[in-house]
Amino acid sequence: MYEQLAKSIGDKVTLTEADFEVCKTFFIPKKIRKKQTLLLEGDVCTYNAFIEKGILRSYTTDEKGQEHIMQFAFEGWWITDLSSFLMGVHSTFTIEAIEDSELLLLTATAREELMDALPVFERYQRLLLQNAYIALQTRVNSALTATAEEKYTKLTISYPDIIARVPQHMIASYLGLTPETLSRVRKQINLRK
Amino acid sequence: MYEQLAKSIGDKVTLTEADFEVCKTFFIPKKIRKKQTLLLEGDVCTYNAFIEKGILRSYTTDEKGQEHIMQFAFEGWWITDLSSFLMGVHSTFTIEAIEDSELLLLTATAREELMDALPVFERYQRLLLQNAYIALQTRVNSALTATAEEKYTKLTISYPDIIARVPQHMIASYLGLTPETLSRVRKQINLRK
Repeated sequence: MYEQLAKSIGDKVTLTEADFEVCKTFFIPKKIRKKQTLLLEGDVCTYNAFIEKGILRSYTTDEKGQEHIMQFAFEGWWITDLSSFLMGVHSTFTIEAIEDSELLLLTATAREELMDALPVFERYQRLLLQNAYIALQTRVNSALTATAEEKYTKLTISYPDIIARVPQHMIASYLGLTPETLSRVRKQINLRK
Repeated sequence: MYEQLAKSIGDKVTLTEADFEVCKTFFIPKKIRKKQTLLLEGDVCTYNAFIEKGILRSYTTDEKGQEHIMQFAFEGWWITDLSSFLMGVHSTFTIEAIEDSELLLLTATAREELMDALPVFERYQRLLLQNAYIALQTRVNSALTATAEEKYTKLTISYPDIIARVPQHMIASYLGLTPETLSRVRKQINLRK
């Protein structure tokens, strides 16, 4: 159950086996089924979730009832509504499983205690935040400057897992395109192959 | 010259005066004039810049030569091209002064050394990254779901400094609107007052 977490931490910092055993005690394992929600928009987000197995997505719903996907998260990734998790405000996102998933949950208090107990975990968190910020900035930049085709092509290169495992209408929502536009773009790309 | 930095760090963590004196030695003070660039798109970003005085912006230019603004940064804020700064890749953004500005520059090496010398500085960096990530996520969410008027209204509430000190055409670029749309939105809001 903790293989992906060990790998994620080990990729970024050096943690002894004994320290990792300490680290594990701060997490709450949880299984959720496809389409189950971990967080409902408007609730306070209690957990930062690490994904051992499966896929989750976070999304917000606009006034017209249309869903807009903020993030997908796979094995080895973290997902949360960060502002709600850290500041205790109402969440902007719903977090839901796209496949049956196995999670390791960390409360905000456990996270603080873990960073105090193992300073190397604070470094790991800082490095995660750096990567998350860079990924999000790349996404904003792409949303501002790229055409529909460029957006989709970049996604296929950067995150082939999303293309392979996530339904088309969710990919369209993530890219800020209508399903029809995405379908047209995919046909154009296939014609050129 | 270091007042804003002392305030920014002191707002987030506890640092003794002696430690702050050590901290200061890692920074390079620099003044730049309005319209001068700190970083040119395509170059490697050598500095993370803390702003003691002034305003800077980061922007990217698309194939049609149109500028898209990623970020504004005021007194007490940091600005950099994070992926270029941390990974040494070519930058996606140009960083330029909107007003005559006074900066404190930190190289990637100095930043690492400073975090090793003062672990509390690593905590400060982590907290900065958390806030930056939340701000960027709010921006993505707003770009996906908000109307032009909602985007502008949110900006006036969250960042009145941007409205007061930044030219209109740059605000339009930041919001992903044409200057004409922004002008129309502002008229509609004023009519209702």
